[in-house]
Amino acid sequence: MSEAIVVRSPAAGSLRRRITRLAAGCAEQAEDSLSIEEPLEIRLSHQDGEARREQSIAITMRTPGDDAELAVGFLAGEAIIRHPEDIRRISHCGPPSPDKGLRNVLRVELADSVRVDLEALKRHFYTSSSCGVCGKASLQAIALEMPERERSEFAIPSKVLGQLPEALRGHQNEFARTGGLHAAACFAADGQIQRSREDVGRHNALDKLIGSYFREGGLPHPGLLLSGRASFELIQKAAMAGVGLVAAIGAPSSLAVELAEQENITLIGFLKSSGFNLYCHGQGLAAP
Amino acid sequence: MSEAIVVRSPAAGSLRRRITRLAAGCAEQAEDSLSIEEPLEIRLSHQDGEARREQSIAITMRTPGDDAELAVGFLAGEAIIRHPEDIRRISHCGPPSPDKGLRNVLRVELADSVRVDLEALKRHFYTSSSCGVCGKASLQAIALEMPERERSEFAIPSKVLGQLPEALRGHQNEFARTGGLHAAACFAADGQIQRSREDVGRHNALDKLIGSYFREGGLPHPGLLLSGRASFELIQKAAMAGVGLVAAIGAPSSLAVELAEQENITLIGFLKSSGFNLYCHGQGLAAP
Repeated sequence: MSEAIVVRSPAAGSLRRRITRLAAGCAEQAEDSLSIEEPLEIRLSHQDGEARREQSIAITMRTPGDDAELAVGFLAGEAIIRHPEDIRRISHCGPPSPDKGLRNVLRVELADSVRVDLEALKRHFYTSSSCGVCGKASLQAIALEMPERERSEFAIPSKVLGQLPEALRGHQNEFARTGGLHAAACFAADGQIQRSREDVGRHNALDKLIGSYFREGGLPHPGLLLSGRASFELIQKAAMAGVGLVAAIGAPSSLAVELAEQENITLIGFLKSSGFNLYCHGQGLAAP
Repeated sequence: MSEAIVVRSPAAGSLRRRITRLAAGCAEQAEDSLSIEEPLEIRLSHQDGEARREQSIAITMRTPGDDAELAVGFLAGEAIIRHPEDIRRISHCGPPSPDKGLRNVLRVELADSVRVDLEALKRHFYTSSSCGVCGKASLQAIALEMPERERSEFAIPSKVLGQLPEALRGHQNEFARTGGLHAAACFAADGQIQRSREDVGRHNALDKLIGSYFREGGLPHPGLLLSGRASFELIQKAAMAGVGLVAAIGAPSSLAVELAEQENITLIGFLKSSGFNLYCHGQGLAAP
């Protein structure tokens, strides 16, 4: 994989803006930090028979920074790439945007050996019938693509788990400034946050986190912490990354629980220092 | 427009599930309500020259219920429909999903006179250059499509505005059960919540709200309340619906503020009973 992937973009997660603050009936001028939201287009260059094709596969509204990691995490979650050597080069292309000087188009060049099935991007929701989109079909499609998960000795005491939300806040630099970012983090069984990533989009934060570990062979611990709610999409990405325990500070959705159950992922919601809800399984949890 | 649009699907916003609750080191069996998340495919049937075409234009993960309103709000936000008579019929198609009996495919038949430019769905992010996706381009594309907004006498005292978050909680039936839903609501200048909609996706909640008013000629008041953060996408939908004041309980993003500024929308964030931040403009706000 190209070196480009380890180059973290300069931090550009927030900007300052003059605002008016109203409190107790009084208006005062103040400065506020805003989370930056800008589109990122991901282009894929891949071998298609004798020819090389390049096409746009996704546009996401993201917080600039860690763009290469975001793209790698996204492609891994869609099972388009599976190994570090599947990526030949990642680079921004096109001129910087005229207003903020941001590079908002990223080209991912895959190795010649990688066969891309772009229909896979759509397939998640479809059964073979013509009119059969449903949650169950989504679950089945994902089951087919799931990698083998390694057995793990990971076991975190529930009391230590309860300390994670506060630990995460200590890592959320941009959130402290803006109050407007989601975060995803990988944690060890002793409750240490190993690495975290932030973004205006919760799926982007998780893509950035997973992408950041991709070259290292995956997440070093099977524990994933989410700052907000757990949706189907987030559990899908977690499952593809081999995560065994997801702890969300917010609520999970019905389909998130169904997928976690199917993929043997311990799913925790409403995580607080005082306790949490366990939605399915329980491996990875130790006595308090 | 077909009658189908006013038929609200039976409430299926949450389901009950047995869970384990851990608190103070003790585990107990409990029941929890989960927000339902299921895919919805929106198919569009429209006249294309001599032929009628039908194609899938979106799949969204949504909370079942108000599917027709969701589709109408989505299409209005993308400027594919502009008047109630643009819609001939809306109906679920295909068999119910095998597991939950849900109808997850919706067909929207447009009137023969409606010309559809599906490229418009992609255009938002593009300039004319080959590699120029950026926030500014997104803003410019939207400016071109924006409808004329009516002048309004709407003026809400800032103190009354501060009471909206609590009023919204009174309307969030499903949220009270699950803790896992976003809401969007239209409010009057006296602080009354006129109508609200909920969904696991914040964009879906807003689409449902806007779609519910579409046949009535649009929102009766230009005030929009959002239960969470304000992103670019939400302000885009609000602008297309003629909203003049957006009050978000969470933080706005940078591009949300830029778009609100361009479209002359008063944007408020971090709305609480004790005060709020005003990010741009101020029309629609009265003295406390």
